[in-house]
Amino acid sequence: MISALTTDFYELTMIQGYYKKNINPDVVFDMFYRTNPFNGSYSIFAGLGDLIEKLEKFKFSNEDLAYLKSLNIFDDDFLSYLKDFKFTGDVYAIKEGSVIFDNEPLIRFHCPLIQAQLIETMVLNTINFQTLIATKSSRIKIAAKDSTVFEFGLRRAQGDSHLNASRAAFIGGCDATSNTLAGKVYDIPVSGTMAHSWVMSFKDEYSAFKEFADLYPENTNFLLDTYDTLKSGIVNAIKIGKNLKSPFSVRLDSGDLSYLSKAIREKLDDNNLKDVKIVASNDLNEQIITHLVADGAPIDVWGVGTNLTTGGSQSALNGVYKMSCIYNDEEQALMPTMKISNTFEKTTNPGIKEVYRFYDENNLAIADYICLSDEEPSLNKEYTFYHPFIDGDFFIMNKTRAKKIKKLLNKVIQNGKSIVKKQSLKEIQAYVKEDLKTLHDSHKRIINPHIYKVSHSKALRKLKKNLILKYKK
Amino acid sequence: MISALTTDFYELTMIQGYYKKNINPDVVFDMFYRTNPFNGSYSIFAGLGDLIEKLEKFKFSNEDLAYLKSLNIFDDDFLSYLKDFKFTGDVYAIKEGSVIFDNEPLIRFHCPLIQAQLIETMVLNTINFQTLIATKSSRIKIAAKDSTVFEFGLRRAQGDSHLNASRAAFIGGCDATSNTLAGKVYDIPVSGTMAHSWVMSFKDEYSAFKEFADLYPENTNFLLDTYDTLKSGIVNAIKIGKNLKSPFSVRLDSGDLSYLSKAIREKLDDNNLKDVKIVASNDLNEQIITHLVADGAPIDVWGVGTNLTTGGSQSALNGVYKMSCIYNDEEQALMPTMKISNTFEKTTNPGIKEVYRFYDENNLAIADYICLSDEEPSLNKEYTFYHPFIDGDFFIMNKTRAKKIKKLLNKVIQNGKSIVKKQSLKEIQAYVKEDLKTLHDSHKRIINPHIYKVSHSKALRKLKKNLILKYKK
Repeated sequence: MISALTTDFYELTMIQGYYKKNINPDVVFDMFYRTNPFNGSYSIFAGLGDLIEKLEKFKFSNEDLAYLKSLNIFDDDFLSYLKDFKFTGDVYAIKEGSVIFDNEPLIRFHCPLIQAQLIETMVLNTINFQTLIATKSSRIKIAAKDSTVFEFGLRRAQGDSHLNASRAAFIGGCDATSNTLAGKVYDIPVSGTMAHSWVMSFKDEYSAFKEFADLYPENTNFLLDTYDTLKSGIVNAIKIGKNLKSPFSVRLDSGDLSYLSKAIREKLDDNNLKDVKIVASNDLNEQIITHLVADGAPIDVWGVGTNLTTGGSQSALNGVYKMSCIYNDEEQALMPTMKISNTFEKTTNPGIKEVYRFYDENNLAIADYICLSDEEPSLNKEYTFYHPFIDGDFFIMNKTRAKKIKKLLNKVIQNGKSIVKKQSLKEIQAYVKEDLKTLHDSHKRIINPHIYKVSHSKALRKLKKNLILKYKK
Repeated sequence: MISALTTDFYELTMIQGYYKKNINPDVVFDMFYRTNPFNGSYSIFAGLGDLIEKLEKFKFSNEDLAYLKSLNIFDDDFLSYLKDFKFTGDVYAIKEGSVIFDNEPLIRFHCPLIQAQLIETMVLNTINFQTLIATKSSRIKIAAKDSTVFEFGLRRAQGDSHLNASRAAFIGGCDATSNTLAGKVYDIPVSGTMAHSWVMSFKDEYSAFKEFADLYPENTNFLLDTYDTLKSGIVNAIKIGKNLKSPFSVRLDSGDLSYLSKAIREKLDDNNLKDVKIVASNDLNEQIITHLVADGAPIDVWGVGTNLTTGGSQSALNGVYKMSCIYNDEEQALMPTMKISNTFEKTTNPGIKEVYRFYDENNLAIADYICLSDEEPSLNKEYTFYHPFIDGDFFIMNKTRAKKIKKLLNKVIQNGKSIVKKQSLKEIQAYVKEDLKTLHDSHKRIINPHIYKVSHSKALRKLKKNLILKYKK
């Protein structure tokens, strides 16, 4: 959905203020999030493709302006300014599908203040949710040891978020969706066969399975638990499936998935149906899947609904968008700025910042290094990595350890126009897979993962300390 | 968003099956949810207005059909059937904004099987989310002792769900939204004044507040925590606010909200600014608000974001849609049917069912009574209320206790066309307020509420037992 009114109302009251006071300096804003979701130690960056499109198309319609006028808060002069409003700034971003970490700039915006303010809510709404879901999806694929995962969450998705959810779940690694509209809009493979109501619409389960197999003899799937999984469902599935030429699959949707999947595997194998796959669903998440896998449950395909489209018990990523520089007339330059907070973690990082990722000889990521834009780390040099705010917590990397350094933020929009090729979802999904390989397994653990180091350079640390001192005075 | 492709893919494979086999009996489906969200004992029914509109406009576009054809699963014959597809059934529903309970039919659909199947996912997607959020909103209003609550959640909303979220939050009792588009689309009051970046865009906080008050002298709000809430924020707010003719307000967005609100209230009162209101925000939910209120924090207005637009730690309502009757050719009648599950709570209730709410002499709801459509409870009669599945759990209501009985399900769609007047959100919100008054306070407690009784009639209980017996045999 693209509408310029997808904005918190205070952005509009503020920018009318800037407009009337003729305040519109160039500024720099960073988008970042504060803590990794799901008690994990990483996220998967998603939503950038949609955001680029929204920024390019950002525009107030006549209807939008008529609504704003009706509120009796905005002047005609300001409203006619909005009529021609366009985003004309530069945007630097980490590649969509990248492994990312807390408190590092993911997107950096360079533009006049009014523009920066007006796009804020849309940026956060777009990136926060898709990054949350792509991360969940990657965790579920990891728990499932990379076996097939279907996203079945449309009915439990938060209303109209379902397209965003299906997009992000596919990016994070899911293989297919049940959401037909997402299939059409995003070219995601669609999947799904039979509900309990199919079985209930025939005189008995045998007839229901038989008719279905006649219609769809290839890759037929039988849902086993309408009446009794072991006494009826699997018996009828085997009776009919044995005579099919193409391999079929069976689905469990309730009961003890570990016990039932083992019992069913045995019955299938006894009937020489070793290539028949078992699909399981029923409020699955990465913890339950981990336990089922550890338990040796012979489940081949996982259908995950609610948790994949909503994030489950964590329903939002705490991404924020903060000013880090503002143009100063006296200095005739962009000057670093920051917000001090009574809650220290909410104190922001000043200056134009870059993020570099250091890799070791096995192409595994060592740590991320946030520094000022005039610093440029190079190989064969010793570096000190400072914790973003814990005093005394730092580590020194000796000069032979790093074998590769990658600059993460790259320009994607120049003067309001995209300068990068639009990525297909399949390309982004492939990149996630590749980038996750550079992350040590200990960081990918579902619970109690090893924390990945995101660090500040000495110069950034000094700038921040000096600014805090200045404000406190 | 209205698209006929907002459906799980298996609905389409199943209905092609029904179509080809010429199976399309009349059926009855119930929509209900299994457990009250947020460990509460009730929900607020929301989303019905949107659902009625979607059912009336349900239609496949040529683009949709071209996409389905491209999958090489659907025959031309079936696709041309879909081209003319319309929902032509009857729908009975509880009034939007009603207090509702777990395991009672909220919407009952009477239509041919193919239609019932095709609309399933859309029904659930629409009702599940809005009911979740309207419930959350009502809980937050209850925790806040009915003081003003603003919904500030657009930036953390799950992508495009934000309009649904703002709609439902307003229905549940919120007074205003920060979501400008929701203001336009739903005529919800919009609210919002100043962000930290406004303060950071001026040479100091005093100038930032001064300029803002010049621009918006009426109902000005000063955000206090950009640099230092007590040493700087409130000092500057009082300095400027004292000279304003219209009452202003101040906002806290970090730190200890209890301590800070008390300190600020004192400073305001000392300066004879007793009518200045204190707004608080910062990851609030109904538990935190309850504690702040209990702590005597003098907060007048609550800004709630993430928790109001996503549900917080519960991100989905477990609403389902199940067949309860199917037309039988031999009997020439709709016959009760049900799904038996290995997980007993998933076993459904057969038959065409009505829900009646009994009220006592104080117009407080006593219990809900689910019975078969040919039963009609009346006053001055003794009733036995049976627990939906716990054997031996029942209560007998003596014949003088109930003073009013209300039938909850009423026809809203006939032959595919709405027969009810479209309700405005303000009307629905007012109805929520009124209906919540009929619920005893013990059911509205934020934690450990008294469980409200939702019961089966003797006849329904008997029908269910007999059917289970039949299937087990």
